Amino acid sequence: MTTETREEASAMVTYELKHVCRQTGARAGVVHTPHGSFETPAFMPVGTQATVKGLAPEEIKATGAGIILSNTYHLWMRPGHDIIERAGGLHKFMNWDRAILTDSGGFQVFSFSDRRHITEEGVNFKSHIDGSRHTLTPELSMDIQHALGSDIIMAFDECTPYPADRAYVTESLERTTRWLERCVKRHDESPSGQKQSLFGIIQGGMYADLRQRSARDILQFDLPGYAIGGLSVGEPAELMYEMLEAVVPLMPANKPRYLMGVGSPDYLVEGAIRGIDMFDCVLPTRLGRNGTVMTSKGRMIIRNLQFADDFTPVDDKCDCYVCKNYTRSYIRHLIKANEMFGLRLTSYHNVYFLMHLMELIRQAIYEDRLASFRDEFFAEYGYEI
Amino acid sequence: MTTETREEASAMVTYELKHVCRQTGARAGVVHTPHGSFETPAFMPVGTQATVKGLAPEEIKATGAGIILSNTYHLWMRPGHDIIERAGGLHKFMNWDRAILTDSGGFQVFSFSDRRHITEEGVNFKSHIDGSRHTLTPELSMDIQHALGSDIIMAFDECTPYPADRAYVTESLERTTRWLERCVKRHDESPSGQKQSLFGIIQGGMYADLRQRSARDILQFDLPGYAIGGLSVGEPAELMYEMLEAVVPLMPANKPRYLMGVGSPDYLVEGAIRGIDMFDCVLPTRLGRNGTVMTSKGRMIIRNLQFADDFTPVDDKCDCYVCKNYTRSYIRHLIKANEMFGLRLTSYHNVYFLMHLMELIRQAIYEDRLASFRDEFFAEYGYEI
Repeated sequence: MTTETREEASAMVTYELKHVCRQTGARAGVVHTPHGSFETPAFMPVGTQATVKGLAPEEIKATGAGIILSNTYHLWMRPGHDIIERAGGLHKFMNWDRAILTDSGGFQVFSFSDRRHITEEGVNFKSHIDGSRHTLTPELSMDIQHALGSDIIMAFDECTPYPADRAYVTESLERTTRWLERCVKRHDESPSGQKQSLFGIIQGGMYADLRQRSARDILQFDLPGYAIGGLSVGEPAELMYEMLEAVVPLMPANKPRYLMGVGSPDYLVEGAIRGIDMFDCVLPTRLGRNGTVMTSKGRMIIRNLQFADDFTPVDDKCDCYVCKNYTRSYIRHLIKANEMFGLRLTSYHNVYFLMHLMELIRQAIYEDRLASFRDEFFAEYGYEI
Repeated sequence: MTTETREEASAMVTYELKHVCRQTGARAGVVHTPHGSFETPAFMPVGTQATVKGLAPEEIKATGAGIILSNTYHLWMRPGHDIIERAGGLHKFMNWDRAILTDSGGFQVFSFSDRRHITEEGVNFKSHIDGSRHTLTPELSMDIQHALGSDIIMAFDECTPYPADRAYVTESLERTTRWLERCVKRHDESPSGQKQSLFGIIQGGMYADLRQRSARDILQFDLPGYAIGGLSVGEPAELMYEMLEAVVPLMPANKPRYLMGVGSPDYLVEGAIRGIDMFDCVLPTRLGRNGTVMTSKGRMIIRNLQFADDFTPVDDKCDCYVCKNYTRSYIRHLIKANEMFGLRLTSYHNVYFLMHLMELIRQAIYEDRLASFRDEFFAEYGYEI
C-alpha cells in the first residue's frame, strides 16, 4: 500500500486548525474522530482499566471530555482484549460513545524494570497480576489495539528513561523507529486500519538534536497524528520545555500533536504555549483518591482538620456539580470515614478542574492572550514545580 | 404538654391509608413528611455515615427512594452532630432533600457486647473509632437527632438479643418503656419537637405475650408512628412472622408501622402481608460491595468466572440504569480489577431491585393479589432462608 492510499484509508482522525494565538503561537483547533470531535488543546482523562477511576461515563461527559485514554497493557492482561472484542469493542464494553485513545502498552512493560528484557523482537516481561511471562511486540500491540477498537492507537515505542546516556538514547530511538515501521505494516494489513488512526511517537531523551533526529525519522511515515513521548519522566521542567521547543516546530501544522503523560496545570499551560494539542494524565483521579483537590488557589488536602467545619465549596470559583452541592466539611467527613462517595466527589472535581482549565486556555488562545492568562492563573494557583 | 397538643405540634409525619389487599390484609398508603411523601410499603436505603455507600443522592432518587435511614451513633462519633447542625442539618450536609429517618444509636452501642455497660441511665460504651468511653442516654439520643434534623427520629431502646430468657426480655422491655418516657419528655421540651416526629419501638423478644405487653405500653404514648424492633436478629423466619402476627393487629391503623433492620426480599413480602409499611436494611449495598447482585432469579455472585464473557445484563427483566447500559462481563471485570465503579453499579442495581420489588408489592396490594404475587415471585427467585 502506498503512503497516499494509506493516508486516505486510515486518516479517520483529522485536525482542523482554528486559531493561532498572536501572543504565544499556541494553537486552538478541533480533532475529528469516528466517535465525535473535540476541541484542542484538550486534556484526556485516563481510564486505565476501561473506567476512569470512580466516575461514570455520564459524569466524564459532564466534565466536558470528548476523548479518554485507556491502557492496552492493562486491558490485555485483564479482562483480555478477546473479551472486549467479543463485547463489541471498548466503546461498547465500557458504555463510552465518544473518542478513545489507547496507548501501546510499551510504557507499562518498560516500567517493570526488574522483570523485563528488551530484544529487537519486543519486550519480554512478567505480568503484574500473576507473574506469568509474556512478550509484547509491535505487531501484538497493534493486534490488541485493533481488537479494542479505539479511535486513536499508539505506536509501540520505548519510553526512554531519565537519565539516559547519549549512546543508549540513540540506540533506543532507532529501535523505536524500526518498531514503528512494523506497527505501520501490521496496521495497514488489518481491516481495522480503515477505522482506527495510528499515531507515531517521537523519542530522543533529553538531547535536542536526538529529538530532532527522531522527529525527522517518525514524521516520514506520514501518519494522521504524532505524539511526543519520554517527557515528564523526572527531568526538570526547563529541560522538558527545551525539548518541546526543539521538536514541535518540525511537526506538521495539519496533524494533532500529543504530549504523553502530562497533566499538571503548569505543564498543560506551558505545553499549549509550545504548540501541543493533546495531553493525558492520571493526576486528577489519583489526587482525588488521595483526598487532595485542585483549586484556583492551588492544591488542597481536604482531609486536613481545618476543613472539618468549613461549609464553603471546594473552590468558590468553580461551578461544577461538586462545588454547587457539597461543602469541604462534608467531603472531608466522607474521606475520613473511608466512604467511596468522597473519592467520587474529589475525582469528579479534579477532572472538571482540568477540563475547565483547558477551556480557559482555548479561550485565551482565541483572544490572543495566553501568556497573560498564564501569568494571571499562576499568580493565584502557584507554580508546583 | 398534654397528649393532644403534643400530637398536634409534632405530628408532622402522617399516614394516609389507601387500600387494604383483600387477599392478604396487607395495606398500601402514603406517608407524608416535611420533606415530601412516599408510598408504602416502602424500603429505606441505609446511609449510615451520611451517604448511601457508593451512591450519589441523584442516583438514590433515581431508584425511586423517598426516604433514607441514617445512623445516629455513627454521625455522633464522626463528624459529630454539632458539625452537622452547624452545616444546616443532615439534609443539607449530605445534599438529600427527601425524607430522612434516624435510628437512636441504641442498636450500635448495644452491639458492642464486650465493651458496653447498661444502667438505668443509659449505655456506657467504647467508641469503635478511638476506644474513648461515652454514655448514650435517651436524652442524649434525642439531642443528637434534634441536631441532625431528621424527619423521623427513633426512641432510644434496647434491641433485645436473641436468644434471651423471659426474665431478661421482661426487664429489657420495661426499661425500653421507661426510656421512651424520657425520650418523649426531652422531645416535647425541644423546639425541634415541632418539626420532627418521634416513633416509639415495640420490643419483647420472641415471646408473643411480651410483645403484646410492650405494644400496649408503647402505644399509650400516642406517637405519630411505631416501629417493631428486635426482630431479624438470628431467629427462624417463622418465629419472626409469629411475633408480627401477635403485635401488628394491636397497632393503630392510622399510623405508619416500621419493621426495623429488615430487607431481604422474602422478609419484605412477608412483612407487607402482615401489615408492615416501612423497612430498612444495609443488604443491597452490602451485597453490592461484595460483588453479589440480586436478580429476579435470585442472588448472583457476579465475580464468578462464568460471567467473564457473559454479555447480557445483570437481570434481563430489570430496566435500571445498570441493566440498560452494562453487561455482566463488564461488571465482573471492574470488580475483579478492584474498580470503584463496579461497586457503584452493583450497589445501584441492588437498591433499584428492592425499590422495584416494593413497587410490585404495592401494585399487588392495590390489585388484591399479594399472596399470588408472593408465590409467583419466589417460584422464580427462590426462598433464601
